[in-house]
Amino acid sequence: MDGQTLKAGAVAAAKHIKNPVTLARLVMDKSAHVLLTGEGAEKFAVEQKIALVDQKYFFTEEQWQRLQSIKDQEKNALGENRDVSSAIDKYGTVGAVALDKAGNLAAATSTGGMVNKRFGRVGDTPVIGAGTYADNSSCAVSGTGHGEFFLRMAIAHDIVALMGYKGLTIEQATHTVIKEKLTNLGGTGGVIAIDRAGNIAMPFNTEGMYRGYALGPDGKVVVEVF
Amino acid sequence: MDGQTLKAGAVAAAKHIKNPVTLARLVMDKSAHVLLTGEGAEKFAVEQKIALVDQKYFFTEEQWQRLQSIKDQEKNALGENRDVSSAIDKYGTVGAVALDKAGNLAAATSTGGMVNKRFGRVGDTPVIGAGTYADNSSCAVSGTGHGEFFLRMAIAHDIVALMGYKGLTIEQATHTVIKEKLTNLGGTGGVIAIDRAGNIAMPFNTEGMYRGYALGPDGKVVVEVF
Repeated sequence: MDGQTLKAGAVAAAKHIKNPVTLARLVMDKSAHVLLTGEGAEKFAVEQKIALVDQKYFFTEEQWQRLQSIKDQEKNALGENRDVSSAIDKYGTVGAVALDKAGNLAAATSTGGMVNKRFGRVGDTPVIGAGTYADNSSCAVSGTGHGEFFLRMAIAHDIVALMGYKGLTIEQATHTVIKEKLTNLGGTGGVIAIDRAGNIAMPFNTEGMYRGYALGPDGKVVVEVF
Repeated sequence: MDGQTLKAGAVAAAKHIKNPVTLARLVMDKSAHVLLTGEGAEKFAVEQKIALVDQKYFFTEEQWQRLQSIKDQEKNALGENRDVSSAIDKYGTVGAVALDKAGNLAAATSTGGMVNKRFGRVGDTPVIGAGTYADNSSCAVSGTGHGEFFLRMAIAHDIVALMGYKGLTIEQATHTVIKEKLTNLGGTGGVIAIDRAGNIAMPFNTEGMYRGYALGPDGKVVVEVF
């Protein structure tokens, strides 16, 4: 999402796209739409000369074992608890927010989604306002966590609104949404956010969240986990 | 969406669902998810004993003629303008917002979407925060219009945020978002909204918007178009 124009692009429920953010950018720049899904999104990719990849490309032994373990739990569960899925995408989501020297903000998020998801489930990542938002008037946000909570709370837009309408700092706004509202509702996750002055906040209410930032071409690079 | 719990359910890109809001309610009540898409959503429907209907069910002569007319325009258009689609769903979207006697708010929206849509395009209707939102702390909102603008602006959540964070009335908040922000960005559409005190606002920046309200079991019923 482009914080200067509020233009946005997203793809969801795609199965053969190597770089979803590249495709999302094309949706923003080359289509009249914001959100494309499923086979339609992949058809658009082909028209835009994006090669589809075999699903084997996405295979990792670690995630495969995780899936089997969850499927085993599912077999042993009963009734309504049958839909065992791993709510927290511990490894799946990568997001970026950026401020350029002209003061423009942008945000992008990519994910493999919940492990053992079914029914064409879509989380917060491709949903503008939930997992991703950017508005030059306040900040850019990218989120990771239990997507259903991020959707219900419109987390990324909520942070933007708290800054824009309530005058909170980026530190206060992200703290309010992640450490208070999300936590009170029982959800888990975190966000990375940057405002137009270059202030950065990266709160989370989970054990850890891989995160980092770089300030300018010669600036310091910081990487943190816990 | 349920404004008391912020629970929500939605389905998108489904092709054989007679009553999407009924299915959305089941997503909210009977799944661990918020947003289900495409064939997955229909598989969930079948598991929930919702019968799929043949696509003929959705046929109307008027919409068929509209589609042919747009396809003709498309043939005569060139290059990037080839993707001619009818941005404004003049007939497609039906929404409802409600306040019960206990002070709980709810919102629901259903649509056939843009005419001649392609690529699994999803608009604002099934996106919590864009076309639909309800929060007991402020109001319930259901929107209709050019979905891409509603997505980019997170319109439904923006109205909730303006009431909650800036202290605007429902009249002021909906006016600001529809008559000012949406209009300034070049988008068209409208919303129906109700707050926890029962105040109703239904602004739009289009020629007309079919709308109405009923106050209580013995209250007055109002229907308006322009």
